[in-house]
Amino acid sequence: MTEGVFIVFEGGDGVGKSTQARKLADWITSRGREVVLTHEPGDTEIGAILRDLVLNPKWGDVSPRAEALMYAADKAQHIHEVVLPALRRGAVVISDRYVDSMLAYQGAGRVLAERVEQIARWATQDLLPDLTVLLDLEPDRGLATIAEKDRVEGAGEEFHARARQFFLDLAAEDPEHYLVLPARTGVNHLAGRIRERVAPLLSAPTGTVEP
Amino acid sequence: MTEGVFIVFEGGDGVGKSTQARKLADWITSRGREVVLTHEPGDTEIGAILRDLVLNPKWGDVSPRAEALMYAADKAQHIHEVVLPALRRGAVVISDRYVDSMLAYQGAGRVLAERVEQIARWATQDLLPDLTVLLDLEPDRGLATIAEKDRVEGAGEEFHARARQFFLDLAAEDPEHYLVLPARTGVNHLAGRIRERVAPLLSAPTGTVEP
Repeated sequence: MTEGVFIVFEGGDGVGKSTQARKLADWITSRGREVVLTHEPGDTEIGAILRDLVLNPKWGDVSPRAEALMYAADKAQHIHEVVLPALRRGAVVISDRYVDSMLAYQGAGRVLAERVEQIARWATQDLLPDLTVLLDLEPDRGLATIAEKDRVEGAGEEFHARARQFFLDLAAEDPEHYLVLPARTGVNHLAGRIRERVAPLLSAPTGTVEP
Repeated sequence: MTEGVFIVFEGGDGVGKSTQARKLADWITSRGREVVLTHEPGDTEIGAILRDLVLNPKWGDVSPRAEALMYAADKAQHIHEVVLPALRRGAVVISDRYVDSMLAYQGAGRVLAERVEQIARWATQDLLPDLTVLLDLEPDRGLATIAEKDRVEGAGEEFHARARQFFLDLAAEDPEHYLVLPARTGVNHLAGRIRERVAPLLSAPTGTVEP
């Protein structure tokens, strides 16, 4: 167990995850607690290279297994280099995407569900978030806000619909550790609802908190 | 099943794998058969980048899990892009290192044996070589021939002794698919013994051959 609090934002592209992650980070910082705001994939030196390998179309025909393994390697390095050290010193870590995204896009959304979850859990040393905030939106509304689409963003509507449903199913299975909010509710209203849910986690002395 | 023949060279650093792989490739080519001479890690565009990430000391504190996953991703891409297409068109593929090296250096040689083999097998779609030639040598004699050591080569003597024993154990468990030769026997003598063992594989009509 670690001393810190691990909060993850999940959801499709363009739903406002990074905006809400930043607002939450600012609020927690204003309460005097150390916050590490991070993201997957790519928030380490190695991860940035892996992120380019999996997302940049210039690499051509990337094997689906290689892609899943590179996402997993990015997570392993991110946990090792950023997340665990911060949690160990008692910080609040807020990550824009985590394992659920890998499962939604590399697993359920594609043909390789088998083994992808095991690999992701092994990569992340079975570290689970204290809370995952899922910003839910119909896929086409989110993607419409992104002009230049990378490989994942450029995948079909059905792919994104499956990923959305996958996120919702994960949240439904574990309501204690998920907060599902409709993404287009107004930035400040959403931020307020997220703070309400996060506040009790901050006052707790250690790690995972029962509500 | 594929139409080609898949031959792998394994063993510690500096034992002469690439020399023997090249000699075997030349011999098979002279018999009129297509040969693809390749190596792991790094014999794809993506693999070359992954190879640098795992071996170049400049990347600093790489998580052991991230390292294993990057090796696995390299293998997945190599199988997908190089090995399987060549085998499907009936070529002989000769690879300098394959899964055994990953298991010896990421698994048995280190602390993460658990799961590393599963991940390597998944990465390579369970493709096994028709023959693995293990060039065996006491680790310090091999390494002495290499001037600039990378991260793996720079690991301790005990690490390399464990890896050597791991290779020998794999070969002992499956003599039908392994040929173990003492590495310092004379280049041409070794080449001759390898050809003797490979010859029947080349005349067989398809894939894996029973001796």
